[in-house]
Amino acid sequence: MARMAAADNTSRQRMIDAAITLMRGAGLSGAGINEIVRESGAPKGSVYHFFPGGKLALVAEGLSVYAERVRDFIDAALASRTAPEDKVRALFAAFARRVEQADYLSSCAVGTVSLDLDEEVVGLHTVLSDAFASWTGCIASHFGPGDGERARSFASFVLTAMEGAYIRCRAERSKQAFIEAGEWLAAIVRPAAGRSQ
Amino acid sequence: MARMAAADNTSRQRMIDAAITLMRGAGLSGAGINEIVRESGAPKGSVYHFFPGGKLALVAEGLSVYAERVRDFIDAALASRTAPEDKVRALFAAFARRVEQADYLSSCAVGTVSLDLDEEVVGLHTVLSDAFASWTGCIASHFGPGDGERARSFASFVLTAMEGAYIRCRAERSKQAFIEAGEWLAAIVRPAAGRSQ
Repeated sequence: MARMAAADNTSRQRMIDAAITLMRGAGLSGAGINEIVRESGAPKGSVYHFFPGGKLALVAEGLSVYAERVRDFIDAALASRTAPEDKVRALFAAFARRVEQADYLSSCAVGTVSLDLDEEVVGLHTVLSDAFASWTGCIASHFGPGDGERARSFASFVLTAMEGAYIRCRAERSKQAFIEAGEWLAAIVRPAAGRSQ
Repeated sequence: MARMAAADNTSRQRMIDAAITLMRGAGLSGAGINEIVRESGAPKGSVYHFFPGGKLALVAEGLSVYAERVRDFIDAALASRTAPEDKVRALFAAFARRVEQADYLSSCAVGTVSLDLDEEVVGLHTVLSDAFASWTGCIASHFGPGDGERARSFASFVLTAMEGAYIRCRAERSKQAFIEAGEWLAAIVRPAAGRSQ
């Protein structure tokens, strides 16, 4: 029984990982049941065994798991430096490496799914906006607590730039948009004394 | 003959408009041949009559047409104000209205398609990156010519923020990300004397 439960957990986890990989590639439309089954190697019937709510339940859980992983990724990149401008640059350099390593064919699952929302799946917007709120909170915690409101707004703008840079990088097949955004955002948080203007 | 040619042009244009509308909703996956035919009201066979290259040729032309329209939209918004910070705010306010009017279910066709690129359609990246280059050039022309390099880099960052704000707005069902990005970008181009810090 224990072994069966462990195998179940592995199959379930594989399906979630497959959904995440596929969503990062082409959003909801890329993550069809057939594609998830193929990518995960799980038997087709097992999707509904593990996710009685079907595809939407599976992708919603995938997005939640993904959101936690990205929060850790953001946290680690920001924690790797001390000065605010260095933190921003390190974050955008980390994302630049990530998109380059994927040959510009994979980006943020929350971003890709956000641009697939139609009237049928608009209910997914809660899990997407929760992910953005979680990431904004994480980023803000690295730029506070001097002015909480300003730190939070800056963090939110950083997130907007990250999502936009992913779009640019995929279209342009270049990581330049991340590097450039990192520089502009670093200039915003650089202490005034160090500014060239 | 003249009447038939005019009808042909109308059908062709309707298909392009339908493709644009559908791509703005959910990218490439939303703009299938069946959906384009239904949305345009054109007979199914006529897609290949007008676009012998099939769906990819049609969406590529749709993206080019869309890119010109958005360039005009950006140009008009930026030309409506004189001071650099007011130009930026006007641009982001214009996009905020646009996404709100669409009930957050429609955004930038170039952005949605960029996040759908896989190995099969990666060739579309040229038409997408051309659109970005055109918009960047248009934005930069409003913030030059003092320092051409800086104006171009700023314009490119503005574009990154616009694409990211669309993602945020669709997930959050709020136009706040555009307003916020406009404020941060306005602060960058506000003359130093007017800054609060």
